[in-house]
Formats: sequence, C-alpha cells, structure tokens
Amino acid sequence: MPSTLVVLDLVGIFVFAISGALVAVRKDLDVFGVLVLAGTTGLGGGFLRDVLIDATPPAALADWRYLLVPAAAGLLAFAFHPLLGRMERMVNVFDAFGLALFCVAGATKALEYGLGPLPAALMGMLTGIGGGMLRDLMAGRVPVVFRGELYATPALAGATVAVLGTRADLPVVAVAVTGAAVCLTWRLLAMWRGWQAPMPTGPASV
Amino acid sequence: MPSTLVVLDLVGIFVFAISGALVAVRKDLDVFGVLVLAGTTGLGGGFLRDVLIDATPPAALADWRYLLVPAAAGLLAFAFHPLLGRMERMVNVFDAFGLALFCVAGATKALEYGLGPLPAALMGMLTGIGGGMLRDLMAGRVPVVFRGELYATPALAGATVAVLGTRADLPVVAVAVTGAAVCLTWRLLAMWRGWQAPMPTGPASV
Amino acid sequence: MPSTLVVLDLVGIFVFAISGALVAVRKDLDVFGVLVLAGTTGLGGGFLRDVLIDATPPAALADWRYLLVPAAAGLLAFAFHPLLGRMERMVNVFDAFGLALFCVAGATKALEYGLGPLPAALMGMLTGIGGGMLRDLMAGRVPVVFRGELYATPALAGATVAVLGTRADLPVVAVAVTGAAVCLTWRLLAMWRGWQAPMPTGPASV
Repeated sequence: MPSTLVVLDLVGIFVFAISGALVAVRKDLDVFGVLVLAGTTGLGGGFLRDVLIDATPPAALADWRYLLVPAAAGLLAFAFHPLLGRMERMVNVFDAFGLALFCVAGATKALEYGLGPLPAALMGMLTGIGGGMLRDLMAGRVPVVFRGELYATPALAGATVAVLGTRADLPVVAVAVTGAAVCLTWRLLAMWRGWQAPMPTGPASV
Repeated sequence: MPSTLVVLDLVGIFVFAISGALVAVRKDLDVFGVLVLAGTTGLGGGFLRDVLIDATPPAALADWRYLLVPAAAGLLAFAFHPLLGRMERMVNVFDAFGLALFCVAGATKALEYGLGPLPAALMGMLTGIGGGMLRDLMAGRVPVVFRGELYATPALAGATVAVLGTRADLPVVAVAVTGAAVCLTWRLLAMWRGWQAPMPTGPASV
Repeated sequence: MPSTLVVLDLVGIFVFAISGALVAVRKDLDVFGVLVLAGTTGLGGGFLRDVLIDATPPAALADWRYLLVPAAAGLLAFAFHPLLGRMERMVNVFDAFGLALFCVAGATKALEYGLGPLPAALMGMLTGIGGGMLRDLMAGRVPVVFRGELYATPALAGATVAVLGTRADLPVVAVAVTGAAVCLTWRLLAMWRGWQAPMPTGPASV
C-alpha cells in the first residue's frame, strides 16, 4: 500500500512538472529554466506545506526519486514540447488527477503533524495549487489560479472531505478515494463546462 | 491582557487583508484571488518571520480566528470594493495602525525566540512589511514599499524602539506602546506630508 | 581557518549584494528597495537553503556581520552606482567568485544536516543562485539565470564535486578548493566565450 501511494505521488509530480516545463518553453526559458520550473511546479506545493507545518527537510529532499521524476519530465518536455503542447487537453486531465492526489495527501499530512481541521484543509489546497502558483511567479505572470480558472475550489473541497473523513475515523482508503474523487469530478466538470470563479462586479477604484 | 493583544492582532490582520483584497480587485482577479491576496497580506509577514525564526507552524495555523478574519475581510472587499476604494484614505490610516502593531509584535516575538537585537528589529520590520511585499509579488507588481513610499522605515524604527526597551527591561506595555507610537506617528506624518524615501541620483548604467 | 571561511563568506555576500543593489537602481527603486535587494541577493540563497534543510534560524540572523555587510554594500551602491555600473565586468568576475564559494559552502552544509548526495548538490546550487533568483523576482523580472546565461550549471558542477569529495573522505580544504575552482573556471569561461545554455527548439504551442 505505501508503495502504491509513492507511485501515485510520483505520477502527480510528473504531470505537474510537465505543465511547468511547458510554461517555461512558452516563456523562452533555457533548458535550465525548463528544469527549474518543472521541479518547482512538481514539488513546490509540498515544499511550501512542509516548511509551514515544520516537516523540514521536505520528503522530496530525502528520496532521490522525487528529484529525478521532475528532472525527467523537464527534459522530456524540453525535447518534445511541440507534441506535448498539442496534447494539452490530455495533459490537463492528468493535471486534474495530480491535483486530486495532492490535495488529499497534503491535508492528511497536515493532520498528522497536529494541525486543526481548517488549517489542514488549507494546507491540502496549498499542496495542490502551490506548485502552479510558484511556477507562474517565476515565469513572470500572475498565477492563473487567480484568474477565473476554477482550480483552487476543487482542491479545497477534496481536502475538506479528507479532513472530515479522517476526523470521523473512517477507513483511510475510503477517505482518500472519496476526497480525490470529489476534487477530480469538480475540476473536470469545471474544465468541460467552462465554469469560472466569480469576478468582482462594479468599477474598481484606482 | 493577552486577549487585548489578540484583538489588536486580529484588527491589524483585518486591515492588511482589506488592502490586499483591494489590490486583487484592481488586478481583475477572481474571488479566489481576492481571498488569497487578503490572506497573504494579512498573514504573510508573520509567516515569513515564523519560518525564519523557527516558530513553525505559524500561530495563524493553530488558531482558526486568524484564518477567518482575513477570509471575512476578503469577502467584504469582494462585495463592497467600490465603497472601500472610496474610503481609501481611512483604510490607509488603519493600515498604519496595523503596521505599528505588527512591527512591535514581530520584534518582541523574535527576541523571545532568542534572536539578537539587530536581527530582531529586522524581523519586526519584516512582520510589518512582508505581507504587503508578498501581495505585490503575487499581483505581478514591484512591491510599492520599494518605490518611494515611506513605509519600511517607520516599521524599522518602531521595531528598534521595542527591541531597545525590552533589552533595557522596561515595562512590557510601555515598550509596546512607545514602539507602536513611534511607527504610527512617523507613518502618518509621511502620508500627510508626502514624505518620500531618497532615490538614487545620477544616470543608472544599463 | 574558520575565520578565513567567514571572511570568504562575507566577501561573497558583499559582491552578491552589490549586484542586487545595481539591479534595484536600474529599476528606479528607492534607498530602501536598494537595501532590501542588496540583502536579498546576498543572503537569500542561504536563507532558502537553511529553511529547506531545517537549519533555522539562518546563520545570518545570529551574526550581525552578516547583516551589516549587505547593508554597507547597498549604501555603497546607492551612492556610487554610476562608478560601479562602469566596473560591471569586474563586478561579474567577483560575482563568479561568490558563486564558487556559495555552491561549495551550501553543499557542505546540506551534507552536515544529513541530506543525501543528490539533494545536497542541489542545495549547493540553490545557495549559489537563490539570492539572484529572489532579486529578480522582487525587481519584477524573470530570473536571468533562466534566460540563457550559463550560471546554474557551474554552481551545480562545483557543488557536485564538493559532495563527491566529501563522501570520499578527501581532505576538506582540497575538496572545497577543487569544487570552487571547477565552478569558477566554468563560469568565467562561459562569460568570456559567451557560452549559452541550450534553448528549446521548434515553435512553442500556445
């Protein structure tokens, strides 16, 4: 079972890293920039969570597979970005799987480190969206997660389900699967139906 | 007395969160971006300090009121931003109060965690200005605190007073009030008189 | 011997801080922005490393010399930036020395804190390039280290040499000198020959 979790985690990191590398290619970064954005997107959410909940050094610095997977994803995207760019729809579906895995895993880890339910749910969301936020900041753009894309809400929903289920002492696997399913379904529906987060109305003051 | 401090702290967080949410509205972010910028501005300075002085997890992750206050401020600003934008002068005065509270509280906490006087004063300043710096980075602009606005110097002055007073074993309340008053007076005078920080002179090399 | 190391460290911080201050002047920041960018560039790489490997509070917050050196560099650059800007070629050579020192020192510290060889080498690279990355993010530009400039690869090479030598139980001084020499030679050759990191080929998808 733990090895299943590690495999799922590595898959999530791989997909996030591909998305980071594609942004780097679009921004005309060199091979090093591609690798750093791949690593930041794949691992950044977990790093932010681990620094905040005092779980340093982060797990990714204690297990070389967590470093090689984003590096491999970065090199792959560097070489084959035209192909991957055309497969973006599929990449986005995989990305939704990554989000679902990360929000549940992040919330669970935060609970294990003694956080209360509300902060643990927020840490789960941060694990899911933090890597993409750092990717966008380093690529010089406002995080897409702030711009109408419905991405953070599904992550917060999935993390909340995971927190409530764990607090209710439900079986671990059932909790994780339910939380991930809630996040995944919501995210995929938002993508396919074009759901957007609400924008402020009325003129902004200057 | 401790509950007075918590109330003051929450007031500071609330005001900072309002300023973050107004920036988000101006940058056309969605409701989630507004909430994140509210939270980042309200809590970010304390998070940076706590990560650096090894006080993780930050207090805000152990007390749900510290999370609900910026969320409430963000929703309020999302709904009523035209009104709040017109009250900006008043928001800025409250913001100066927040700065005064945070620089003193941050410096005191850094001393409690064993830092020396100079780093503790810097941590106090960081507590006051860090949230606004993160807000600006996430909103895609150079931090306004680097752009002539006299904001960091009052925070450093207030933090320094708090550090020196604490080191001299003066009564805690007197030290806190004096430090906050120094910061507040300086900041309000800078706002009302239009004081600016010095700019480099001469042509910048390219 | 330890005092030699501290002096080298302070020299590296000084040179990095000069480069940060010059960027701030070019971006029209005020004196406070110049000081913050000087401090961030000089100390930021070490701060990122220390937060990730759980060595907080960072050494720079426990030794006032580590805070005064970047402040002095910032004030110097604020006052004499036209002169320093004309000496940029020389500043860049000193910067290469700083990079060489930091990547070796960072990798060695990460090993001391129990990290494995691969993460320790990455932490060494991060120590060398992290300050400049933070500088660029705060100044509102995409990090130059992602833009063709051959800067990170020499740092990774020097850090790798330091890790391998330490693991092989070679004498500490010999390991440090060899690692720094590898980084320095590679970086200077890249500057003088105009070597660039590879860019992605083919059209980027939108």
